[in-house]
Amino acid sequence: MSQLWDSLFSEAAGAIKPSPIREMLHLIRQPGMISFAGGMPDPAIFPVSEFYEATAILRDSGRDVLQYGTTEGYGPLKDFLSAWTAPRMGRRLKEEELLITSGSTQVVDLLNWAIVDKGDVIIVEEPSFMGSTLNMHNHGADFETISCDAEGMEVHLLPEKIEALQKAGRKVKYIYCITNFHNPLGCTLTVERRKALLDVAYRYGIPILEDDPYGYVRFDGDHLPTLFSLDEKGMVIYACSFSKILAPGTRLGWCAGPAELIRKMAIFKQGVDVCSCVVSQALVYEYCRQGHLEAFLPKIIAHYTKKRDAMEEAFKRHLPLDEVHWVKPEGGFFYWLETPKIDVDELFRKAIDQKVAIVPGHTFFVGQGGHHNCRLCYTFASPEEIDEGARRLGSAMRELL
Amino acid sequence: MSQLWDSLFSEAAGAIKPSPIREMLHLIRQPGMISFAGGMPDPAIFPVSEFYEATAILRDSGRDVLQYGTTEGYGPLKDFLSAWTAPRMGRRLKEEELLITSGSTQVVDLLNWAIVDKGDVIIVEEPSFMGSTLNMHNHGADFETISCDAEGMEVHLLPEKIEALQKAGRKVKYIYCITNFHNPLGCTLTVERRKALLDVAYRYGIPILEDDPYGYVRFDGDHLPTLFSLDEKGMVIYACSFSKILAPGTRLGWCAGPAELIRKMAIFKQGVDVCSCVVSQALVYEYCRQGHLEAFLPKIIAHYTKKRDAMEEAFKRHLPLDEVHWVKPEGGFFYWLETPKIDVDELFRKAIDQKVAIVPGHTFFVGQGGHHNCRLCYTFASPEEIDEGARRLGSAMRELL
Repeated sequence: MSQLWDSLFSEAAGAIKPSPIREMLHLIRQPGMISFAGGMPDPAIFPVSEFYEATAILRDSGRDVLQYGTTEGYGPLKDFLSAWTAPRMGRRLKEEELLITSGSTQVVDLLNWAIVDKGDVIIVEEPSFMGSTLNMHNHGADFETISCDAEGMEVHLLPEKIEALQKAGRKVKYIYCITNFHNPLGCTLTVERRKALLDVAYRYGIPILEDDPYGYVRFDGDHLPTLFSLDEKGMVIYACSFSKILAPGTRLGWCAGPAELIRKMAIFKQGVDVCSCVVSQALVYEYCRQGHLEAFLPKIIAHYTKKRDAMEEAFKRHLPLDEVHWVKPEGGFFYWLETPKIDVDELFRKAIDQKVAIVPGHTFFVGQGGHHNCRLCYTFASPEEIDEGARRLGSAMRELL
Repeated sequence: MSQLWDSLFSEAAGAIKPSPIREMLHLIRQPGMISFAGGMPDPAIFPVSEFYEATAILRDSGRDVLQYGTTEGYGPLKDFLSAWTAPRMGRRLKEEELLITSGSTQVVDLLNWAIVDKGDVIIVEEPSFMGSTLNMHNHGADFETISCDAEGMEVHLLPEKIEALQKAGRKVKYIYCITNFHNPLGCTLTVERRKALLDVAYRYGIPILEDDPYGYVRFDGDHLPTLFSLDEKGMVIYACSFSKILAPGTRLGWCAGPAELIRKMAIFKQGVDVCSCVVSQALVYEYCRQGHLEAFLPKIIAHYTKKRDAMEEAFKRHLPLDEVHWVKPEGGFFYWLETPKIDVDELFRKAIDQKVAIVPGHTFFVGQGGHHNCRLCYTFASPEEIDEGARRLGSAMRELL
């Protein structure tokens, strides 16, 4: 029947590529492998007993929780989020500005349903999170890319690119920006650039999707104001997730935005999964209500600060320092290494041989680039594994120099 | 900013209509309203304590369950389903033939991603489940419709329609069929027609999506073989869900199909929600492993048989029998009434005034029709409410005759 299916597959299916990281899982799971690949939290600090405590809600409100939920999200969880996110959002979100989603990946999917037609342009940082660009690609979007430096997206490059696109009759639908502890770069957009980015949005009438899964996981320095809180014209859609601040297995995220857009996204959500898992929403709500979210955050930060520091030290100890460059991240999950003299695909193979897994940088590019870069996640491995993994990686690098 | 968003919305967003049933919720929730509208299970029989028992898995395997899951689904749940569904599937499904989804609505979404391009044709029963047709519509599909009678889809009408479409150069991508206890019609496709439908699929090279959320909920007579089990050529994608046999709040469904198609669907799933809720998958697995699924099914069937019978009796007691026609369903959730002399929108308004909620039949039509029909769900209301609701509905009908 192979021939039959080949003739039936959609254009998107013909063009689709699996996520290289998801596909790497069988390599990563080899015995003895140290993984810096997937952006996974450390299961050792999952709040298992606190989350288990929250199951009381399944016993006490089982009849509600086991029924269909409203598409917009479980009311008590929305109320909690509205209050809890207020410091970051600059105000309490109204009910109609907030949508609970099945992970923050679904925010991208629903936004694309709501505003992207085939051939529309989305402006993305280059490199960017491939889970998001994969979804944009599936929706038929074309990409315009903006490079980043240590201060985040190079916002000053936007006007010229946008004007050229608009002159060519292209519809630019939104700018996708990972503002804090960028995936894969680790960098954070400065306040000046945040303001400049909003100015661009206002000037050209192009909204911004602010993707902020890592924002709460800051090790050093002060939190910067979100684009959403700086925005005075309702041009920012803010996406966040419980994956990094609680646990990815809950598969819950949320987004905030103008009510009329949230409404459209919710209608599309009716057609993709009706509502997010009510059981999970109720458990997460009860966990939050008992104060565990607030209490867990400093633990995550302390735990991952140690790991970030362990990786920094291990790099200094084991990598060929003249041939590798990086910027120490102030939060989040990732280091981004630059190896000007080393091809990353060769490095990847040598590293796998030595039982350490990294993600080649080009994985995160929609265009060309990243062939001398790799992303390393420090949250999953133990400090001892981080040291040993860096030693193996350094050895793999030296073989290629 | 309204103008801005109006200029940004996608073509699909411009054309999208919210699910009338989801939108009806505020009406249905009025105090004193008896609802025959939403296709909701009765929360009174949710297996709350058995499901709560299953939470032990969150305590004992918390670190696994709270982590990201594989896109294809939680392994133990897939293994369980492969064995448990074998009698219905005709054999044990292989791992690569089975995909766990975020409700069975997501099966339709992922299948559309995998095989439907804008302008392709999907053949649907008319009327059909609007959650599915909404998703198909969003993907830009065009519809060809096939009418149904008491024996299900009128399969003999297919060849002429398909040949005309193929002659016109249209790509017919699949046939969507709710084989058992159709939503909204309540009818079941006969064995003869199942075989004839497969013949059509083979003859024209058009696969079938067999949507079977109600199949296990049979009150009378014997289970009929699924299309999937009758299929010898890998042309059937089978979709099912835990929503009606356990609880919709788990938001879990699954599908079975040819490995190469399942693989494509899983890659699209990476881009829409990464994986289905692992917490929910683990809870459902543990619930099933403890034998509760098997034990709960006869309870559901007994409970809903009583309600179906209560509605049958109440109709006979309260409706103007000369002016209303129906077929008693052998399973599932729904009655479909025909009222040749009554416009259903007028009936809907009168019924709401009398505090009983129904769904107008035209809601389920992608084309014209259903203006003298309505769908009534008997699973949600109590037998007393069913009697009183039918009395109110009969009174509303008489006002319009």
